[in-house]
Amino acid sequence: MEELPGVLGTSSSFALRLGQTVFSSASLFFMCLDVDFYGYSAFCFLVMVMGLVISWSTTLLVVDAYSIFIKSVPKQRRFIFTITFGDMVLSYLLLAAACSTASVTDLLRSADKSYCPENLCSRYQISAAMAILAWFLSSASCLINFWLFPSL
Amino acid sequence: MEELPGVLGTSSSFALRLGQTVFSSASLFFMCLDVDFYGYSAFCFLVMVMGLVISWSTTLLVVDAYSIFIKSVPKQRRFIFTITFGDMVLSYLLLAAACSTASVTDLLRSADKSYCPENLCSRYQISAAMAILAWFLSSASCLINFWLFPSL
Repeated sequence: MEELPGVLGTSSSFALRLGQTVFSSASLFFMCLDVDFYGYSAFCFLVMVMGLVISWSTTLLVVDAYSIFIKSVPKQRRFIFTITFGDMVLSYLLLAAACSTASVTDLLRSADKSYCPENLCSRYQISAAMAILAWFLSSASCLINFWLFPSL
Repeated sequence: MEELPGVLGTSSSFALRLGQTVFSSASLFFMCLDVDFYGYSAFCFLVMVMGLVISWSTTLLVVDAYSIFIKSVPKQRRFIFTITFGDMVLSYLLLAAACSTASVTDLLRSADKSYCPENLCSRYQISAAMAILAWFLSSASCLINFWLFPSL
């Protein structure tokens, strides 16, 4: 099996996981700076998804670091399948959460100022942007592992 | 090349494309029954995406019907790549549009009744549900063609 960049256990996969962890943590941070998010179901959904993504990415970050350390790439079919499936579900959830947050923020901005003061709304927007970046990296991880899967 | 169900040119692919066309047309129909959607950017986004998806799915429906008719499955690498890439982009756009519509509708329902009378809001909800079904089928098409791609 040739080593495709981004496949589980490689240093590029480590970089992708690190990016996912950083962007999803940033998204959660900007959303939770204020407790106002409880009022909107889209924002609660984003917080829930980010909780899942951070734990998933951190776990795989540790797996990647360990694989790089012992210089061995995991090749078990079932293991790669689980990782690919998890990445796929989480990337869809990330995109859904990011788009929901972005559209709700857009609606709140166009509505009355009392619903969404300027600094609060830009915080929600940054959160949605970070979620989109996390989705992009998560989707890349998923597609690379999915590409590898038929050859296993 | 073994014939995987759902691969371009097979009858199951025809069924998937037909489903996508039907669900996306239904979603567009329920959204455009009233001209109120112009007021919300999420709804305009849905209408734009549905326009793209309907034309894409109808074209591939014709390609599938022709392939079934002449009993030959297209196997050109570049052609399958274009189809897979288009399906992937459209499935992401569909999910984004569906989630944006669903979250905006949810927000409008929880807000004042004047923003969203009961029958209008349920129409938006049906539109979002149809978009999710279209996404599901589009995503299946994309994954099946992507699975096949490394073996070409």
